[in-house]
Amino acid sequence: MTVLILTCEQDVTADMVVARLNATGVPVLRLDPADLPGGVQLSGEYVHGGFRGQLSVGGRLVSTSGLRSVWVRRPGVPAARAASASASASSWLTEESSQALYGILRGTAARWMNHPDAAARARHKPWQLHLAQRTGLPVPATLITTLPQAARDFAERFPDLVVKSVSGTHPQDPPEAVPTSRVAPGTDFAAVASGPTLLQHRIAKRADIRLTAVGDRLLAARKAVAADADPDEVDVRFARAGAPWEPVGVPARTAAAVHAYLREARLAYGAFDFVEDADGIWWFLECNQSGQFGFVEIDTGQPISRAIAEWLAQEADV
Amino acid sequence: MTVLILTCEQDVTADMVVARLNATGVPVLRLDPADLPGGVQLSGEYVHGGFRGQLSVGGRLVSTSGLRSVWVRRPGVPAARAASASASASSWLTEESSQALYGILRGTAARWMNHPDAAARARHKPWQLHLAQRTGLPVPATLITTLPQAARDFAERFPDLVVKSVSGTHPQDPPEAVPTSRVAPGTDFAAVASGPTLLQHRIAKRADIRLTAVGDRLLAARKAVAADADPDEVDVRFARAGAPWEPVGVPARTAAAVHAYLREARLAYGAFDFVEDADGIWWFLECNQSGQFGFVEIDTGQPISRAIAEWLAQEADV
Repeated sequence: MTVLILTCEQDVTADMVVARLNATGVPVLRLDPADLPGGVQLSGEYVHGGFRGQLSVGGRLVSTSGLRSVWVRRPGVPAARAASASASASSWLTEESSQALYGILRGTAARWMNHPDAAARARHKPWQLHLAQRTGLPVPATLITTLPQAARDFAERFPDLVVKSVSGTHPQDPPEAVPTSRVAPGTDFAAVASGPTLLQHRIAKRADIRLTAVGDRLLAARKAVAADADPDEVDVRFARAGAPWEPVGVPARTAAAVHAYLREARLAYGAFDFVEDADGIWWFLECNQSGQFGFVEIDTGQPISRAIAEWLAQEADV
Repeated sequence: MTVLILTCEQDVTADMVVARLNATGVPVLRLDPADLPGGVQLSGEYVHGGFRGQLSVGGRLVSTSGLRSVWVRRPGVPAARAASASASASSWLTEESSQALYGILRGTAARWMNHPDAAARARHKPWQLHLAQRTGLPVPATLITTLPQAARDFAERFPDLVVKSVSGTHPQDPPEAVPTSRVAPGTDFAAVASGPTLLQHRIAKRADIRLTAVGDRLLAARKAVAADADPDEVDVRFARAGAPWEPVGVPARTAAAVHAYLREARLAYGAFDFVEDADGIWWFLECNQSGQFGFVEIDTGQPISRAIAEWLAQEADV
């Protein structure tokens, strides 16, 4: 039974997982959907009420019934490297290739990290906030609005606010993260009428927490805020390098809530971002279903890539 | 409790359903996501572990906790009518507005026709074929492939073939359906290596069947093939106007399989296309989760819009 890894060619994090799988003798098929059609070929047959599929990469043929798991890591856009006469033909070929590849893979009994349906849903930030609330994770007071008066009322109740994007990532090429920023006192908020705005109560944090969930295993890391940190540096992604990430235990209540979140979201992998306040409470900011983990593993020595390799290598769902 | 209808301004089919709802006194809020931000405003608040949302259209304010159902009919692209400085700003505003609107609506307990997650999944044609097989609907022998030899082997076993697109619709503006065509005998199939191709055994049909499912209600219509029809006219969408659509009963086995399909797909609405062969067997071609029904209602007099209005008007899930 083979592990299928969908990722681009240059992916050192995937390399770490592949090395672990190779060491234990688990067969691995790695491919980039960008190479379909071309270096990657496929076939799926629906005959007499049954389905049979196969993938071919570099002359190696694998039956989809022989896949034990699929890791959707950093796949390229299907058909991205195929020659095409025009942009319209190319977007058409991408859609055809995407449906063919993922359609055939959907017909297998393989376990997914993460299933495309769960992954697509998990990208919705407002849905994340709601799910976090329902599963018992503390969520900072948040408003998403196009109504200036609603924003003003919210700012009166929660004067210390940050503003974020609703969707997370600016759709540039390459996509660009939008930094979270503090809202200046006395802001008028008239401009929220021109576009949905996410305002969130700023948690005075003493640390950032990254919790990486792999199946049932939770590996958390903590990065303390420097004593002389600028309180305007609210976004850890854009802060100056400071303290390293260090392993930290997961409080039992948080662990139970995270397990519930993953179960309801049907995610096998999730990278949770929290901030820790002065009372030690972990406040949920977001869960990235395809979040990077290499930097945490390097800083902390936590065996995340090994946990992923072990999850992918399992023969049946546990 | 209000029925929310997401559709564009010019939608006579939605008008039919709105008229029925108005006649029974059920409050209706109709909006086009293209008008957000602008004519449509919204606000959603996540505070103290709870969620409260509101929508505002033309000065009318509705709490999302007061929504009994949401009909995703023919919604415009969010923010499509908002002024924007550049194409990049516009796609960004669309993503922000889409996440804000659907994110807030996902936080409600309303019943959906159809839920965005179910709708997104249901658009995958290969997934449809697989689900149809599993729920017991007869599916014509089908191959999706980029391997010329697989196509040749398939054509030897099933010499009478049609070719279709894998994804269904050509991504033009406006999108354009790609007609299904017969494959000429002796075709070489070398070209399938350049793009995934869907080949399907042609069913010698004596009628086309359109089965419209609304909740648990199934309304089927049949359009007989003219005696002098050209056998190359395999795609009913592009055939000459012939016999009208006429109501037809649904065979018990088909009804059971369709109910199972909808249940597993989590769809409240589906427009199924079948072809009927000489033995009276209905062969599954596809299920369009947002398929038009106006033309069937006009031809047959079947109360589809009434069934939709009744489903939307229900107070709780049945």
